[in-house]
Amino acid sequence: MPKTSTNVEVDAPAAQAAGKPQAACRVALLGFGTVGRAVGKILCERNDPTLRLTHICNRNVERKKQSWVPPDVIWTEDFQAVLRSDADIVIELIGGLNPAEQIVRGALQAGKSVVTANKQLIAHVGPDLLQLANSEGCHLEFGASVAGGVPVLPALRTGLSGDRLHGIAGILNGTCNYILSRIENARIPFSEALEEAQARGYAEADASEDLDGGDARAKLAILALAGLHTRVAPETIRARTIRAVDAVDFDYAAELGCTVRQISRADLKEDTLFAEVGPSLVPTSSPFGRVQANQNLVVTSGHYGGDIAFLGAGAGGDPTAVAVVSDLKFVAGNLSARASARGKRAGGEVSIPVSSPKPSSDFETPWYLRFFVRDQPGIIAKLAQILAAHHLNIDAVLQNPGFDKSALPFVITLEPSRDSQLHPALEQMSALDFAIRPCLVLPILP
Amino acid sequence: MPKTSTNVEVDAPAAQAAGKPQAACRVALLGFGTVGRAVGKILCERNDPTLRLTHICNRNVERKKQSWVPPDVIWTEDFQAVLRSDADIVIELIGGLNPAEQIVRGALQAGKSVVTANKQLIAHVGPDLLQLANSEGCHLEFGASVAGGVPVLPALRTGLSGDRLHGIAGILNGTCNYILSRIENARIPFSEALEEAQARGYAEADASEDLDGGDARAKLAILALAGLHTRVAPETIRARTIRAVDAVDFDYAAELGCTVRQISRADLKEDTLFAEVGPSLVPTSSPFGRVQANQNLVVTSGHYGGDIAFLGAGAGGDPTAVAVVSDLKFVAGNLSARASARGKRAGGEVSIPVSSPKPSSDFETPWYLRFFVRDQPGIIAKLAQILAAHHLNIDAVLQNPGFDKSALPFVITLEPSRDSQLHPALEQMSALDFAIRPCLVLPILP
Repeated sequence: MPKTSTNVEVDAPAAQAAGKPQAACRVALLGFGTVGRAVGKILCERNDPTLRLTHICNRNVERKKQSWVPPDVIWTEDFQAVLRSDADIVIELIGGLNPAEQIVRGALQAGKSVVTANKQLIAHVGPDLLQLANSEGCHLEFGASVAGGVPVLPALRTGLSGDRLHGIAGILNGTCNYILSRIENARIPFSEALEEAQARGYAEADASEDLDGGDARAKLAILALAGLHTRVAPETIRARTIRAVDAVDFDYAAELGCTVRQISRADLKEDTLFAEVGPSLVPTSSPFGRVQANQNLVVTSGHYGGDIAFLGAGAGGDPTAVAVVSDLKFVAGNLSARASARGKRAGGEVSIPVSSPKPSSDFETPWYLRFFVRDQPGIIAKLAQILAAHHLNIDAVLQNPGFDKSALPFVITLEPSRDSQLHPALEQMSALDFAIRPCLVLPILP
Repeated sequence: MPKTSTNVEVDAPAAQAAGKPQAACRVALLGFGTVGRAVGKILCERNDPTLRLTHICNRNVERKKQSWVPPDVIWTEDFQAVLRSDADIVIELIGGLNPAEQIVRGALQAGKSVVTANKQLIAHVGPDLLQLANSEGCHLEFGASVAGGVPVLPALRTGLSGDRLHGIAGILNGTCNYILSRIENARIPFSEALEEAQARGYAEADASEDLDGGDARAKLAILALAGLHTRVAPETIRARTIRAVDAVDFDYAAELGCTVRQISRADLKEDTLFAEVGPSLVPTSSPFGRVQANQNLVVTSGHYGGDIAFLGAGAGGDPTAVAVVSDLKFVAGNLSARASARGKRAGGEVSIPVSSPKPSSDFETPWYLRFFVRDQPGIIAKLAQILAAHHLNIDAVLQNPGFDKSALPFVITLEPSRDSQLHPALEQMSALDFAIRPCLVLPILP
């Protein structure tokens, strides 16, 4: 009962249970940028007896040095020296494919476990690296590679492992969500919202990776690997840009009870993995519709457990560092057990049988088509004719008053159809002379 | 690259990495009610080579038998025989403290790991059982004991272990949330919403445990143990009933931009654990305000990672079974590793240092006070006088027209004050003769 105030240590790791003093895992930190510094700070503040920071490795390391790092930590620019050192775990926070891939392979081949936040690395060669880690008896953990501090990847490994997931959808890119929710709330033009995001440090000078979906589809590929046990090359996932979204789209979306968000989604149906990334209409009453600023949301759909939503800070040094340190503690716990298991890693990880289903972006969904036209008689009639010829059913036509007739925005929504059925109609429409911008086509999600 | 369609098994458990054929863990299922059947069904459908169902134990077991259970599974009424059997893992789904506690202790003492969904057991004696499991080199997992299929407990053990949490809040009781969201959406009386919940099977005939907060505070005690590493006896957590909430409270709450939900919350501040369960005003724009029907939501607040929200089905056979089977896979993975570690369990679990801070319900918060009075001149003046005498600042007075003067509901909201400061004022107000019901006092959460 809680009146006593003695501290009891329950559920201690195996080495301690076996009565041995617990040796600290030696941890080398590769990459000392925003996330690296936050990881270093947590490790130094925590002073966890099971984890000992031994190396910090970065280019131009002299200017990186911090007074709060204990004096026995080795600062170095020599990644190879770290791989030859006695570190047990390497934290890879260099980012990108090159030289990160070589370094991670080198670490695993040297028998070191790896914790990484590198989404491109895992999206592109994750299954290969997992196999290498397995054959070397090491761990490879990447909980920080998707959605920063939101623990969706660890949940897929643990609390959801008893389910059979068939779908994952998410708001995985904070930059896009910041821009879209700013346009939503202030009805400012896209370019102004982008400049604002850049000024606040939420978007880089060249924000193409974010805006055009490259970042999100790498994360979606990782979620598909960990949650749907499928291997999909990120570049085979269709990505649509958010650059064409206009303030007026939020007006029309609102009339449909919706708002616009960049949604990444993957659905496994028999032998096909339906997957895409791009701006989509989502109901304002849905979890997706309520995600503001640079938050991340992931919703998993399971055969037994239904939908589970995870929401939180998707980026930033400290939240991402929580994911890295959590992985680190997991690996260290297993390594300390392995010490008594003579060289092979301990369990606690769930096997990931990986299949490679056919990827497709041919979702069946209702559609939102937004046109900007030079007004003239017969526009709706012409469009309706083309749609009818392709057996596409119009659900609604929305045309708000008050716009300049030389650049008139209006919307047609369609009943559910496959992308492949819609595409030829769009081709035909694009040849019409009254359109002053390409038609914006957004799926309407339930 | 994904064009090949070979299936590779990556990241397989340790026994396989060590080149040995993997022996299945023998699993005994104690309790074959709704959750037990759902667990049995998943295990039989999955046919996971690492898990083998060996026993199903229940009273009157004859009438429980199912055709989909393999013929080699032993059906029995004898719990002690299961404890003497060669089962490696016991799933305890009996519920309640007695005889579940004796059976779980017996299993652990017999060297068997235990997976349980039993919230009362873990809330009351969880730390003792964890210590027993530790000294016996066994696992005790209880991921299904809070929020059913929402993987918040596994997340505390894994993806959030790198953070230092200071608060946890949640909607942990689906029955209360169903009733409150029904009153919100249909403005029906409490009694009618309760009857509806009972008719739909969401509430028992005697729903006191749900309505009066007993169920939720047991879950809050478990979250405080797993997330805040504090031991708190559930009966020391203040629980307020939702029975006094009226349809009119949703009207007044809406004027404040809020709705009413049963919220369980725990905040660790230095040596005090502030904790309580009860109906509270929450902004309709907050994650809490949007939880409908019998869903569960848990929000963790961390020093580094900020707020993370988990939302999903909090009850039901299948979602709860996902949590049980996930724990089972975790334990089985560790046991198969321990097989080569000569008798002591493997790691992968994080140590839980448990402290016992002073529990308190003396939150500092703004307040909502709702009165039902026989109208007469001077009521507001008298109440305002009492509040002023106790240095409590009125924020707003809300009185909607159209009510019977003999039972007039109106609301006073107060600026933040401690519960202990408000209490003497409420005592004094309760003596006033114009009140025809006790004043309803709800905290207003941010």
